[in-house]
Amino acid sequence: MPMFKKWVLSNDAPVLTSKGHHDLSEKDFELLEEHTSDVCKGEILCRALFLSVDPITRLYLSYGIGPGETVPGRQVARVVESRNKKFPKGKLIYGSMGWQTYSVVHPDAVQDICGKPVQLIEDLPKQLDGTTQYHQASTVPNAVQLPKSACLGVLGTTGLTAHIALTKIAKAQPGETLVISSAAGQIGHLVGQIGKILGLHVIGYTGDGEKASWIKLELGFDWAFNYKTQDPDQTLKIAAPKGVDIFVDSVGGKMHQTVLGHMNFCGRVIQLGNLSMYNNPKQIPESIPSNDLEIALKALTIVGFNLYRYSEHFESTLDELSEWCRSGKLQAHEHDIEGFESMPKALIEQLQGKYQGKIIIQA
Amino acid sequence: MPMFKKWVLSNDAPVLTSKGHHDLSEKDFELLEEHTSDVCKGEILCRALFLSVDPITRLYLSYGIGPGETVPGRQVARVVESRNKKFPKGKLIYGSMGWQTYSVVHPDAVQDICGKPVQLIEDLPKQLDGTTQYHQASTVPNAVQLPKSACLGVLGTTGLTAHIALTKIAKAQPGETLVISSAAGQIGHLVGQIGKILGLHVIGYTGDGEKASWIKLELGFDWAFNYKTQDPDQTLKIAAPKGVDIFVDSVGGKMHQTVLGHMNFCGRVIQLGNLSMYNNPKQIPESIPSNDLEIALKALTIVGFNLYRYSEHFESTLDELSEWCRSGKLQAHEHDIEGFESMPKALIEQLQGKYQGKIIIQA
Repeated sequence: MPMFKKWVLSNDAPVLTSKGHHDLSEKDFELLEEHTSDVCKGEILCRALFLSVDPITRLYLSYGIGPGETVPGRQVARVVESRNKKFPKGKLIYGSMGWQTYSVVHPDAVQDICGKPVQLIEDLPKQLDGTTQYHQASTVPNAVQLPKSACLGVLGTTGLTAHIALTKIAKAQPGETLVISSAAGQIGHLVGQIGKILGLHVIGYTGDGEKASWIKLELGFDWAFNYKTQDPDQTLKIAAPKGVDIFVDSVGGKMHQTVLGHMNFCGRVIQLGNLSMYNNPKQIPESIPSNDLEIALKALTIVGFNLYRYSEHFESTLDELSEWCRSGKLQAHEHDIEGFESMPKALIEQLQGKYQGKIIIQA
Repeated sequence: MPMFKKWVLSNDAPVLTSKGHHDLSEKDFELLEEHTSDVCKGEILCRALFLSVDPITRLYLSYGIGPGETVPGRQVARVVESRNKKFPKGKLIYGSMGWQTYSVVHPDAVQDICGKPVQLIEDLPKQLDGTTQYHQASTVPNAVQLPKSACLGVLGTTGLTAHIALTKIAKAQPGETLVISSAAGQIGHLVGQIGKILGLHVIGYTGDGEKASWIKLELGFDWAFNYKTQDPDQTLKIAAPKGVDIFVDSVGGKMHQTVLGHMNFCGRVIQLGNLSMYNNPKQIPESIPSNDLEIALKALTIVGFNLYRYSEHFESTLDELSEWCRSGKLQAHEHDIEGFESMPKALIEQLQGKYQGKIIIQA
């Protein structure tokens, strides 16, 4: 029985005791080392290779789990011991085993955050196993094999979310104007590129000038701006002279209200999340002006996004995303960080907006 | 050429000059008396019989029209002179001629607020023409001929709105829980009754105890409460123990946020309007806490309602509404007020929540 490491929510985590606004800190986490349990009939022992870092985890820390519980999250892992014929030793799997280096799981029984059991990944080349040869901030090269970590990103929930939000919910039409918040983020940078593929006029905003340059110059957005330094209202007047038809928002807050003021009649807003409130999910950080009047007057539709309501579209969507990646139309940006120990810091910095694209931890 | 009266937006209307929060007052209106213009080829002269008073008019006063312009609104009128074969003298029509006693209009050209031309009403009994025999606060009796003013209410936009909001947008399913704001209002009192016909658990709130009793005892809502005297959050916990699936809201504001907190996963919110902001449409009256987090977490859908996006359903919906009214399943409550001169006062009092059901002015 090998030793393994896991990150748990600390017993005296400030996020649990703080009443007001509270930024996540490393004090909220505790690293434990334990022996794995016995592998019983039907179970497997797997070793984490790639772990996903996601802003939504911030919410689970306040809403989803209690002190001492393993931080939830998705990972790509290799089966190292098996008492389940469907998941033999050596196979790669994808599932929500949480923030731990080894896991003993029953593949059919283990439900991840989204209620899906563990899945097999059949085609990861052996030589990538546990590799440290990834480049920092590597952009997936054109016309090459995608890394298997892609199933945590562009060929996983972030890619599916970006594609389905635009095509199945917003029903984007060529020539329409799209605005994206957190536009250099793991989902935003894909939404904008897919928007361009679909023939939209794409405007992205971020809280960082360098990221704004990146999405404009490297990813081909039509407009990009730093909402902290440029007046958002004035900028949108110039960037979206015909108004905004689709708004894909992961952030909420005051900027959300500003964009609503620019929406066209029958505009669609896809609310993927609400990053601006994640550090204070139990209490509302500050009152923000309500633009509800816009919703009724302009007959807007606002859809809170839940990917698993659209599972019938997953297969065809993954086919298209994969094709776009391989042909170079879509650049899935992956920021790789080495070391399981880095996970809390990576999440904290992701919430602070320090990274571009998808954050992957290599265990 | 007869003399006619019209209500216009006053040249020095406080609603136009006030910067902050501003309640509509009679000073915002001016009553003018003029001669009607000549009836040219294709035109008709018509006399108003029933005029509709609608909260949305408050918005048009700030957004839609300028000083000296006639207040917009719908009416049922009789053709008294005609140079249009399709609209002969004596016929009854429905259209947006505005707040005036006589109008010269080209039936095909005149576009009302919703972009519809004037329509014929073929079957109004002659003896109802200009009648003053309506009862104050009459509830349409069961199994009888509906008054022709009904095309301004239950067989017009308010009935269509109530029915389509529940059936076509919310796609209400039996057993679901429905919450309605302004539940004794012209749309709300219909939404609740249609909810009961569809097998929903119906909860309505108003700002008045008497109205709450009325919708509970007379109209058959399952729950009704006065949000000014009962704690809304606690009340909803008891009234909606399984959570809220559908919220039909005409009011917005803080109560809107409170109800969002009780919504179930995949809940639907139909935003018909935003009464709480109508007296201050240009400036936001006060910051209200945002529950946007609920939207993403619960995968809510919020739809700003615009009736004319659903015109393909009008005919079948009117058939069903008419049948429900005649069979007594649906009580369309009409509050009739005599005298064209009463219109501004009626609108002001409607916005203050003084009335139940549909307000009709008998000119």
